Amino acid sequence: MKLQLALDTIDIDEAIAIVRQIKNHIDIIEIGTPIIIRDGIAAVRRVKESFPDMEVFADLKIMDGGRLEAEMAFEAGADSVSVLAVAYDATVQAVIQSAKEWGRSVLADMIGVKEQTRRAMELDRMGVDYICVHTASDIQNQGFHPLVSLRQLSGVIPRNKLAAAGGIRADTVDEIVRAGAHIIVVGQGILAAPDREKAAFEIKSKLVHEGRA
Amino acid sequence: MKLQLALDTIDIDEAIAIVRQIKNHIDIIEIGTPIIIRDGIAAVRRVKESFPDMEVFADLKIMDGGRLEAEMAFEAGADSVSVLAVAYDATVQAVIQSAKEWGRSVLADMIGVKEQTRRAMELDRMGVDYICVHTASDIQNQGFHPLVSLRQLSGVIPRNKLAAAGGIRADTVDEIVRAGAHIIVVGQGILAAPDREKAAFEIKSKLVHEGRA
Repeated sequence: MKLQLALDTIDIDEAIAIVRQIKNHIDIIEIGTPIIIRDGIAAVRRVKESFPDMEVFADLKIMDGGRLEAEMAFEAGADSVSVLAVAYDATVQAVIQSAKEWGRSVLADMIGVKEQTRRAMELDRMGVDYICVHTASDIQNQGFHPLVSLRQLSGVIPRNKLAAAGGIRADTVDEIVRAGAHIIVVGQGILAAPDREKAAFEIKSKLVHEGRA
Repeated sequence: MKLQLALDTIDIDEAIAIVRQIKNHIDIIEIGTPIIIRDGIAAVRRVKESFPDMEVFADLKIMDGGRLEAEMAFEAGADSVSVLAVAYDATVQAVIQSAKEWGRSVLADMIGVKEQTRRAMELDRMGVDYICVHTASDIQNQGFHPLVSLRQLSGVIPRNKLAAAGGIRADTVDEIVRAGAHIIVVGQGILAAPDREKAAFEIKSKLVHEGRA
């Protein structure tokens, strides 16, 4: 199980400083959509150059222009990129094709999908590497949580293809781990913690422990 | 009727040079998603500073973090921003709220929506300024065209709230104009034309003519 640190609302210099501090406890660095909107794909390049041995995920949330946008991420050094699960199949396939050519990975973000099981199975058949149940930040205060979707999908999608994101913290990660995701995405659960290194260490320990069990 | 020039795959300096050449024939400058991915929101700022009297549309295709992302666009000088129609209502509402506070506009991009009529009516009730039928670039070679959706929606949405995008050119704009959209988005139809100024002039003339009729 891998821990992905989602860097969303912060400055790129601050992001790099935080990763430097806690990189021993995380596996994947996510350059979130707002950072890419603010700084462009250069943010991905800077982070990958700063941490060449770590996986870097560019959260582009591609909805159209699959090949063009995926190539921009891969060319900048991203190891993986996101396509929206609500995008047309042609877009998903274009992103997958680009990833194959570059030897990189594709994560399909399930945000906004209504028929989760059916769409996840379609995406799996198309060949995305990861399917991420994702509770949008805009609906987290309505009591939504990725756990319900994760349990639904873990019956039809191999566990090593599942990722979960959206409001996960040290005190809520256990259930997510038990439901079985290969990638656990944590943002504010680490970034807003009083001690970031301690929060990252705690969460990562749980993933390692569960991974061995 | 307004003509929106979609700048997608080109360099920002080239984009500014093109707008300078044809600005008398266009009403809205669209900073497309790929430009924002490459150059970040600074692209919007540069274009607005170069053409302060023209409308600038930032095609962010917001899917989550509605307030945060919309504010980044408005702060950079965008007059309008796009939210994906497939986003959660909470996200759409956050973008609308932000636009109200800044005195700007919101365009909901219908790309990927299955029940177009129902969703368009919901978006209209929520208060988006424009609803854009949009044939994704990735499916234009499959024979899809915005005209069918536009005709569907023109029965339930006021014409002055409708926009149309996706593969529109000088020789296909007539039907779109007749179906009745307030904003016509053209990208390659102008950018890839042998004479860009002539293409923009031709298209704009048709909008002006139809607008008066």
